[in-house]
Amino acid sequence: MKKRIYMDYSATTPMKKEVLDAMLPYFTEDFGNPSSVHSFGRDAKNAVNNARETIANAIGAKREEVYFTAGGTESDNWAIKGIAKSLKSKGNHIITSKIEHHAVLHACEVLEKEGYEVTYLDVDEFGMISLDTLKAAIKDTTILISIMFTNNEIGTIQPIKEIGAIAKEKGVLFHTDAVQAFCNTPIDVDEMNIDMLSVSSHKIYGPKGIGAMYIRRGVRIGPYVDGGAQERKRRAGTENVAGIVGFAKAVEIAMENIDSHIEKLVALRERLRNGIMDQIPYTKYNGHPTQRHPGNVNICFEFIEGESLLLSLDIVGVAGSSGSACTSGSLDPSHVLLGIGLTHEIAHGSLRLTVGDFTTEEDVDYVIENLVGIVDRLRQMSPLYEVVLNK
Amino acid sequence: MKKRIYMDYSATTPMKKEVLDAMLPYFTEDFGNPSSVHSFGRDAKNAVNNARETIANAIGAKREEVYFTAGGTESDNWAIKGIAKSLKSKGNHIITSKIEHHAVLHACEVLEKEGYEVTYLDVDEFGMISLDTLKAAIKDTTILISIMFTNNEIGTIQPIKEIGAIAKEKGVLFHTDAVQAFCNTPIDVDEMNIDMLSVSSHKIYGPKGIGAMYIRRGVRIGPYVDGGAQERKRRAGTENVAGIVGFAKAVEIAMENIDSHIEKLVALRERLRNGIMDQIPYTKYNGHPTQRHPGNVNICFEFIEGESLLLSLDIVGVAGSSGSACTSGSLDPSHVLLGIGLTHEIAHGSLRLTVGDFTTEEDVDYVIENLVGIVDRLRQMSPLYEVVLNK
Repeated sequence: MKKRIYMDYSATTPMKKEVLDAMLPYFTEDFGNPSSVHSFGRDAKNAVNNARETIANAIGAKREEVYFTAGGTESDNWAIKGIAKSLKSKGNHIITSKIEHHAVLHACEVLEKEGYEVTYLDVDEFGMISLDTLKAAIKDTTILISIMFTNNEIGTIQPIKEIGAIAKEKGVLFHTDAVQAFCNTPIDVDEMNIDMLSVSSHKIYGPKGIGAMYIRRGVRIGPYVDGGAQERKRRAGTENVAGIVGFAKAVEIAMENIDSHIEKLVALRERLRNGIMDQIPYTKYNGHPTQRHPGNVNICFEFIEGESLLLSLDIVGVAGSSGSACTSGSLDPSHVLLGIGLTHEIAHGSLRLTVGDFTTEEDVDYVIENLVGIVDRLRQMSPLYEVVLNK
Repeated sequence: MKKRIYMDYSATTPMKKEVLDAMLPYFTEDFGNPSSVHSFGRDAKNAVNNARETIANAIGAKREEVYFTAGGTESDNWAIKGIAKSLKSKGNHIITSKIEHHAVLHACEVLEKEGYEVTYLDVDEFGMISLDTLKAAIKDTTILISIMFTNNEIGTIQPIKEIGAIAKEKGVLFHTDAVQAFCNTPIDVDEMNIDMLSVSSHKIYGPKGIGAMYIRRGVRIGPYVDGGAQERKRRAGTENVAGIVGFAKAVEIAMENIDSHIEKLVALRERLRNGIMDQIPYTKYNGHPTQRHPGNVNICFEFIEGESLLLSLDIVGVAGSSGSACTSGSLDPSHVLLGIGLTHEIAHGSLRLTVGDFTTEEDVDYVIENLVGIVDRLRQMSPLYEVVLNK
């Protein structure tokens, strides 16, 4: 069988066997609609509420503050558009950053067309926002700060606790897209003063198509999807019971071992990073050196197109990414890499490798070994590289 | 083991084993993100596109006209709010009916608050809209007609082809909530002049948390959920690959046997209806006598509260519903039953029993037998019934 090494855990993860086992009964046996009053319905409702509690516990929230959605993107849309609508009479200004996920950025752009004002904060070369700039950007009309916890491309972790403290001091709501952070970094919504938080199941070894939003008690926000009375009348649509149960199981497993999970990933990440950086010249390591996702390596290789790199890696069975999976197919360079100050040219040669729970040291070594050869071969075909060599 | 008879197929259905088998590989093996360029991603993308084709074929649509959503409710919200937004410059008037699902009604109410005008058509005693009234309601500012295919509570099937012809003639877009109709009634979007159509997987023996919207090529509608470039940039968020594959498998199974499926359900429905109506006096059969969902029986029992009836049935292991599962918990009587002209009092005593592919004649007979006893017992406790008996 052909070797296949998956190093794209930030795009999505395989489901763990225990997660599947937890889900199975809810497909064919305990398949009731949680809104039904009969025993099938009650069993389903109990399962949903137990799952809600597991997820709440993982972020220091109360059970009734967790709402299930179809995923991180829906949660982000809900938080941003929902607050814009419910606090319209208070103000029309939103603060976010230039390196957010498109679920946040495009939601903000839609609001701009409707007359809202959005400030997109710059980030430094490591992808960090400036707390002073954030403070200065807050006005009387500011109704929401939405800053992602951990960047999906370069892995940078923002100073969330400090952002939360500023938001609280100024009386502005704080939402964070924690899709990449959840179960990869300890989160406490009270300690960090987070009012709303988006998470997704399929990034943490749970099923696709299910996510959640934490909404602090007392936050005024209407539903984004209207209809039935599900989720305390805040998110209509029959609950994805099996998906919810699987999501919670994935969270339960992750939270039991979060310290050793992080430790393992950081070791693999550093082995991968050092192996590449030590052996391949003309590279740039993107993102923050220490405040970063435990499994994220993002490197630009000069004189190379990221696309060719990915295809060459795919041929030897290695699955990587040039940035966010959600924007693949686009010819534009990553807005995140441009945001940290890279030129178009350099940004085009980026490679994101993200390790996860099933990654081994052997996988890492195989990737390094192959990457050295591939980069060398691709550079031999580059006229620009030739110029450099002949200098 | 305690007897458990499920007669709430319109609330949700158990997944079929073949559906689960089709989904399993996509959880743990072929788990890629369809947006990724590597082999894991390509395999997932192929699976999604094959599923899209299966669903398109089932309604006479082209593959690229089918978009996956998180379910029927999201599809309804998207169709109504999306068209309202994209055709704002053309007009602000929407026509729907009084007996739509809350996903349609509440979406319309939100639009009313934003300045849109909504006409809610009356229905007759069988739940049918009047084509003449519909025609008369269309104005120059009308941008959308949204009439459900098959009612979820009383099972009435609207004259969809005729509505589509009127919409086409008048140059107005036609959306139909076909969640209950899909795979229970033949649908052809071209023959019926349907421009947009909402469907859901968990009503047809597929998984929960996945649905789709058919959007006719050329219909101008923006995304409802903004973010990544998934679903031809019209619905952001990582595709629920396993859910999509399961949904398509359920459709494939259903479409292979749709005639015998309908025939079987109609026979069970009539057996159930006749058994109840023949043996229990003071009842009213709700919905259309012939133009109705093949598995739907909806009956009002005078002098009885629907809630007590459901609880008594639950005790003997029978799962039924008083109306839509999505509104359970509410003390208001069903808007559908009020819509067909029932009084609050009568509407409160309603019971919906919906049969499905796993229902047997023995199940039906068991339900009839128990229902006769339960209704009699509950009526003995009713002071109103006593008055009637003593007349």
